[in-house]
Amino acid sequence: MNHSLKEKLSQYQQQVEEAIDALLPVAATRPSKLHEAMRYSMEAGGKRIRPILVIAASKLFPSKSDPLAAAVAIECLHTYTLIHDDLPSIDDSDLRRGRPSCHRQFDEATALLAGDALLTYAFQLLANQYREQPALAAALIADLANASGSERLIGGQMEDVDNEGKPIDAETLRFIHENKTGALLTAALTMGLHFCNPSPELIQHMQSVGYHMGMTFQIVDDILDATSSAEVMGKPVGNDSAADKSTYVALHGIEGAYAEANRHTAAAIAAAEALGGDNAFLIELIQMLSSRIN
Amino acid sequence: MNHSLKEKLSQYQQQVEEAIDALLPVAATRPSKLHEAMRYSMEAGGKRIRPILVIAASKLFPSKSDPLAAAVAIECLHTYTLIHDDLPSIDDSDLRRGRPSCHRQFDEATALLAGDALLTYAFQLLANQYREQPALAAALIADLANASGSERLIGGQMEDVDNEGKPIDAETLRFIHENKTGALLTAALTMGLHFCNPSPELIQHMQSVGYHMGMTFQIVDDILDATSSAEVMGKPVGNDSAADKSTYVALHGIEGAYAEANRHTAAAIAAAEALGGDNAFLIELIQMLSSRIN
Repeated sequence: MNHSLKEKLSQYQQQVEEAIDALLPVAATRPSKLHEAMRYSMEAGGKRIRPILVIAASKLFPSKSDPLAAAVAIECLHTYTLIHDDLPSIDDSDLRRGRPSCHRQFDEATALLAGDALLTYAFQLLANQYREQPALAAALIADLANASGSERLIGGQMEDVDNEGKPIDAETLRFIHENKTGALLTAALTMGLHFCNPSPELIQHMQSVGYHMGMTFQIVDDILDATSSAEVMGKPVGNDSAADKSTYVALHGIEGAYAEANRHTAAAIAAAEALGGDNAFLIELIQMLSSRIN
Repeated sequence: MNHSLKEKLSQYQQQVEEAIDALLPVAATRPSKLHEAMRYSMEAGGKRIRPILVIAASKLFPSKSDPLAAAVAIECLHTYTLIHDDLPSIDDSDLRRGRPSCHRQFDEATALLAGDALLTYAFQLLANQYREQPALAAALIADLANASGSERLIGGQMEDVDNEGKPIDAETLRFIHENKTGALLTAALTMGLHFCNPSPELIQHMQSVGYHMGMTFQIVDDILDATSSAEVMGKPVGNDSAADKSTYVALHGIEGAYAEANRHTAAAIAAAEALGGDNAFLIELIQMLSSRIN
């Protein structure tokens, strides 16, 4: 990663951290246990990729409004999915980013409600912070709600849960990735773009950026999973390690997965170039996501 | 209940049932298990009080837009709270309205995700169905999101869970009822009123109707619980039966609870009269809620 990209990312990350702190209810707000749990999970760090995509997209063209509340809203949405995914009835994960998961740090009821509250808070933030620009608020809310609903994000999660431990075909894998991961990444980009009062054509280009970026993101994750587990287990890479796991590497082999990742990266960059505007940072972000394996 | 009120209620209930059927994704929508679960819980019946309050409030003054999508949205929100409340980590209820609760009919992961999906769908409906009137959409979303967030509905639920089995004081009981039940009833009324392009003063009157109606609703529930359990258990009413339960009857005795219910009913009616407009149906609804004990 070049020096100026690294600096820009760290600067935006800090802006997002500060906005999270400023925009979430303080931990002492009644009921304090609930607000402590919301902050615990929101302040757990992470790369803040979705908020940074909102900011990057909002800077393509001149804009008068501050995208930070929208950036925090999408992070609230993303964080609720992590809290609920970690619950015993789904992934039963004790750890999240090296710390106890929300239900291990608090309890299951609190984690369930903290997830519900962060999901709701995403829409509170958008409705309240952009109240004076109702057309912008409504567009942001439509993008976020549609991307995270039963046919997209939650639908992808449902199919993932239902196929746990089963061999799945390429089409099902595509459905899971496109929806569980891709939908929210695309929403981050289109939400950011709404700050520039975009034409329908620009929105279409941005959806294409989001689709290919989301696919890259997921395939790269699968490749990193396969190669790191191979190191740990001392087995050859891209072999049987993922036989019963639904990954690109299991379905297409490691070489096939690399080829797919590179194809989607190129398509995302082409769509970002078609957007025009101040797209250099956005293109750098796409390259960074793919460079994790190259 | 007089004949014409009964007929009106049944007519609105039918409109709401039809709108639920028309506006929810069909059960075969991928992933079908998730959409079946959403419909299973939404089609479980119930009195549809919140949607009917939306409709009643929308008819106070002339309005051009159809309130049915908003009525369905608030029922989606209410239904998600029931699904999540029934989960093992909260109330662990096997039954809901005489049928298996969502996690008993499907499984815990599906119920968790169906609840998340209905919560999200409430905002999808409002953003998509009122897209052409962004100021209306934004106002509806703000009311629903703020009423159901961490400081209101979910906050009330959190305090309720945390005080389970403990003796609680009158102030905590008021916090739980005002937020867990009252906030969403008030939102139903103010959301309906937004269809009439109301003045800030009208909104204030409506919030007062909602507050007192919500208190009446909850106190009446407590009285019915106490009297029906007394009948079942053959014990005197309003005595020790609720010693460790957080109810108005436990705190104020049965006579005190009746007096409180009647006081709130009168205040709700006074506020509904101050609203003006075509408020006869709204006043009948308030009287109906209180008449369950009189």
